[in-house]
Amino acid sequence: MNNVKLLKIGGSIITRREKEEPTPDIENMERVAEEIKQGLSKNEKLVLVHGAGSYGHPIVKRTEIHKGIETEEDRINFAETQRLQNELNVLFTKKLIQQGVSAFPFQASASAIRDGELKTMEVDLIRKLLEENMVPVLYGVPAYDEEQGCSILSGDEIMPYLAKELNAGLMLHGTDVDGVYTSDPNEDDSAELIAQIDSLEEAKNYLGGSKHTDVTGGMLNKIEKAFDLGKDCIIFNANESGNIEKVLKGDRIGTYINII
Amino acid sequence: MNNVKLLKIGGSIITRREKEEPTPDIENMERVAEEIKQGLSKNEKLVLVHGAGSYGHPIVKRTEIHKGIETEEDRINFAETQRLQNELNVLFTKKLIQQGVSAFPFQASASAIRDGELKTMEVDLIRKLLEENMVPVLYGVPAYDEEQGCSILSGDEIMPYLAKELNAGLMLHGTDVDGVYTSDPNEDDSAELIAQIDSLEEAKNYLGGSKHTDVTGGMLNKIEKAFDLGKDCIIFNANESGNIEKVLKGDRIGTYINII
Repeated sequence: MNNVKLLKIGGSIITRREKEEPTPDIENMERVAEEIKQGLSKNEKLVLVHGAGSYGHPIVKRTEIHKGIETEEDRINFAETQRLQNELNVLFTKKLIQQGVSAFPFQASASAIRDGELKTMEVDLIRKLLEENMVPVLYGVPAYDEEQGCSILSGDEIMPYLAKELNAGLMLHGTDVDGVYTSDPNEDDSAELIAQIDSLEEAKNYLGGSKHTDVTGGMLNKIEKAFDLGKDCIIFNANESGNIEKVLKGDRIGTYINII
Repeated sequence: MNNVKLLKIGGSIITRREKEEPTPDIENMERVAEEIKQGLSKNEKLVLVHGAGSYGHPIVKRTEIHKGIETEEDRINFAETQRLQNELNVLFTKKLIQQGVSAFPFQASASAIRDGELKTMEVDLIRKLLEENMVPVLYGVPAYDEEQGCSILSGDEIMPYLAKELNAGLMLHGTDVDGVYTSDPNEDDSAELIAQIDSLEEAKNYLGGSKHTDVTGGMLNKIEKAFDLGKDCIIFNANESGNIEKVLKGDRIGTYINII
């Protein structure tokens, strides 16, 4: 399928990531939804993926269901974690639909099977929905795992899987930082944003060293998956107003991961 | 898979069916959840299916997405109808989980493909979740349709599909009437509840005649599907306190559809 765009909106954008209780960021959801509507051309194929933020990380950390399920309490936590992700998706898709985006909720864990990594997931139906000009909205979820009953299928794992299966040209990662820096901008005033990275080694230089912390935790992971897969990727700041619209319209912002 | 129980809770039980706006019946949800917990034996395999009530019927009637999607407005209505079903499921599974049922939300339209009727849907994963002692909770949804883009996959269509694929022995249909009557009990004081029906002809005598309206609309449909499939079925009143627990424990209540 040609010209499919894949846009991830991090959980820190649409939730209050720092809260211990699930807390949506409704104002930001509204802005994000408006920008997606503005950035989307007629008949363009778009799949959205969003993260969990405070709807996911605190409960997973507390219950440790990512290590598997054994007891009845684990099973109830598995169910509740899934329920919370649906609750967040219901809130976010509401804003998208109100803006006029045909945002179709799509629960990945209603077909995904993991086994340490994602083995299989329904993609044929996503293709069909795209042909109907729907905008499927997937999200990080606790998923069935053949080894341990349950493990986490993150939005960052869904992205490269879909990029490969849908033959998308580019992965767009909306995070809460501007992109990759030469050093940690929180600690180093001279840190500079890097416009383009051409090799995994270069990325590791900036992100993997002992001095330079990977501030988002998952940044290097996103870049490694892009190189594994051979798909270009843009890492940009979705918290900065206007950026989502820009990136959907093809503007070069943030850090471009260029797979030669 | 042996001894799987399939229980449907009609949309008129967990929502205020008569409302034009989506209106949950939270009090009834709590009672239903408590009865399911009480009725469930340890390690028993149960799949729940629920209807849409006021979360589904008014929007589908108003937008006519069951006739297919063509315009951008249709697509947005398709998305919003799905979103509303997830919203209802989030509320109902919350009550189930609070009662200690490992109720795993399961969006059928994240794998289902219809073509006038249900052609395919993910069932292998439902089997795996049951093996983990999870309780998958499915629900009526607007689904992708190969002919017309979108059509309705009702809870009543999910039930026989699962009964066949999971080889369930019995379908339990919780409705808002006591079962099948000899005539319409709303119009005829001498109407009597029928304890058992042994043939489709018998059911049609009671429900299909010109005098006797099928009060729930879908009653005859449920019975026809039971005969088509060759699976016994119980139609009972889930609005009457205690009935869900009874039927899960194997008590004979309502009308038993006996496939000889």
